[in-house]
Amino acid sequence: MSAVGREERILDIIATARSKRPKFRDERITMAHGAGGKATGALIEGLLVPALANPALEQLADAGSVTVDDVGMALTTDSFVVKPLRFPGGSIGELAVNGTVNDLAVAGARPLALTLSLILEEGLESSVLRAEVEAIAAAAAAAGVVVVAGDTKVVERGHADQLYVCTTGLGRIDPRATLAPSALRPGDQVIVSGRIGEHGTAIMLARGEFELGAEIVSDTRSLWPAVDALLDAAGPGLRCLRDATRGGVASVLNELARASGVALLVREGDVPVHPAVAGAAELLGIDPMHVANEGVLVAVVAPEHADAALAALRGAGDAEHFAQAAAIGEVRTEPPGMVLVETAFGGKRVMDQLVGDPLPRIC
Amino acid sequence: MSAVGREERILDIIATARSKRPKFRDERITMAHGAGGKATGALIEGLLVPALANPALEQLADAGSVTVDDVGMALTTDSFVVKPLRFPGGSIGELAVNGTVNDLAVAGARPLALTLSLILEEGLESSVLRAEVEAIAAAAAAAGVVVVAGDTKVVERGHADQLYVCTTGLGRIDPRATLAPSALRPGDQVIVSGRIGEHGTAIMLARGEFELGAEIVSDTRSLWPAVDALLDAAGPGLRCLRDATRGGVASVLNELARASGVALLVREGDVPVHPAVAGAAELLGIDPMHVANEGVLVAVVAPEHADAALAALRGAGDAEHFAQAAAIGEVRTEPPGMVLVETAFGGKRVMDQLVGDPLPRIC
Repeated sequence: MSAVGREERILDIIATARSKRPKFRDERITMAHGAGGKATGALIEGLLVPALANPALEQLADAGSVTVDDVGMALTTDSFVVKPLRFPGGSIGELAVNGTVNDLAVAGARPLALTLSLILEEGLESSVLRAEVEAIAAAAAAAGVVVVAGDTKVVERGHADQLYVCTTGLGRIDPRATLAPSALRPGDQVIVSGRIGEHGTAIMLARGEFELGAEIVSDTRSLWPAVDALLDAAGPGLRCLRDATRGGVASVLNELARASGVALLVREGDVPVHPAVAGAAELLGIDPMHVANEGVLVAVVAPEHADAALAALRGAGDAEHFAQAAAIGEVRTEPPGMVLVETAFGGKRVMDQLVGDPLPRIC
Repeated sequence: MSAVGREERILDIIATARSKRPKFRDERITMAHGAGGKATGALIEGLLVPALANPALEQLADAGSVTVDDVGMALTTDSFVVKPLRFPGGSIGELAVNGTVNDLAVAGARPLALTLSLILEEGLESSVLRAEVEAIAAAAAAAGVVVVAGDTKVVERGHADQLYVCTTGLGRIDPRATLAPSALRPGDQVIVSGRIGEHGTAIMLARGEFELGAEIVSDTRSLWPAVDALLDAAGPGLRCLRDATRGGVASVLNELARASGVALLVREGDVPVHPAVAGAAELLGIDPMHVANEGVLVAVVAPEHADAALAALRGAGDAEHFAQAAAIGEVRTEPPGMVLVETAFGGKRVMDQLVGDPLPRIC
């Protein structure tokens, strides 16, 4: 068998294995199950979705859809357990609001209302709680959403880590949006909204895991203004949007390739990365594509709408991030369900999801 | 000053103090802040609501309201940290679904959809997780709601207690419902849907805190069928509904008396209590009115609709509980904002909320 023939055969075997629904066979929960990679996928697709079976959940999207009296809405929920609570560029409260708002935005829904549920550890300093509630209020005001309901529970010292936040968001599906993870077609362009990997890097710096010459701050932000601009500029040509959080851009692209049964080719040299983020990733032996973001959008766009989409993103405010919006790759037919990276040297390699994450409790 | 005059003066001082918004001055969070009594009230009204200020939140209702394209909806959220995870008559998963569905129901909203966010402790046995996800699925099916979105986070061993569940519910406001905590009028009747205090007692038994001759099982159930029946039978005469969870019936009545600026008089002898629950409460030196329920409704009804409401509740299924539905008291004018109990011996005492709760982590 030639080298090329063998490579194809291996890709074929991988593709077949990956097209099956993952099974959940682990006896105990490990940190990897919370990291947004393959282990999380197996837990969700192998245990949670089958048990709770219904069409909205089986889409595995960032938000579920609910129609009430012909009004199409999106609902999404997230718990936040980030450590430390405060980090350069943000804090758990701001993250909770933006993370939830962004899940609605990439589902093509205008964020309207949030609920807030707090699990507090006995002994938590009230000033810490107050600072986070104020961060939540400020982020909600900035994102144009109202907190309409809340809940507070307290557990004994040693049964939480200061403060966990669960936010749920309700949004109105925008009539301009016709998004579906299964909509990708060969020739479609893959766009990122700006530099990647900054949230994960900021958290590592905040944990004192290493020192960098440059200051990297979290990319936490509301993505709705960017989505709004994209829907205006490229509405019918927008195939799908994703918020590249846990597992990074690599996880999002793999999920989309699987859902659409297409291949994605990413040109490594076109991916915008801050030099300090690239340096930190190299130090840790990871790819910036696997590092979590909290305000980075991946858009797949029909080729004839790609330029308009890029222009819209670059004008979407928060100039420092969106000015770097870039087309980083395209949709191909082969090998179905997989993501390939074209390196600066012209070689190709498979870019898989990780099983776990080198950075637990990133959000 | 005569004894009667002095009693009036004391009630007057208490009423004035209670009509003010509570202040939050504690330096640290204690278990009492999670118990549903006065400390929780101070945290919510003194810190959370002012920081997140908006009209929906200031209602302090079980659910917030959101109107989208003229469709009135209710949103509610709750975290569940009950210990142990399984107890006679239920488990954390079932409790999470019913608790959220009930918050919608007592807001006069038909429950439609839920989101589910899990915080898992590293090392949790997968079989425990699977059992709870199945309990959630079964309770959701029984309550007629779909789980449309979810999230899973994992924290290191020792940073959670096996499994915390956060559920958020979306419901459609029923056009028959005109409920408001401020709607109580002198002469209105106070009704409970059946025996009280069984959930809290079941949890204490499950913790092995004492032994009882009788088996007491949690009262966790969906209250929507009962609310649906009440709306049919007494719609325009229904002033307000409440789900008497943390803090028990006493907390709910105090909140209503304050919100409406009326007095509530409860006839102790008319409150349905299982003898074993009464016995357990006496052992612990607490009043069953302060013990948590997870499927007990308090309704305040205009006097001319009270008989119809009682008949509707008694026919609302789950016969064992609803067969005991009872009118337990009425709305008076004086002393405003307070709840008085008329004992079996004809005496009267103030029934206040507790500061904390003798039973933490009850839900």
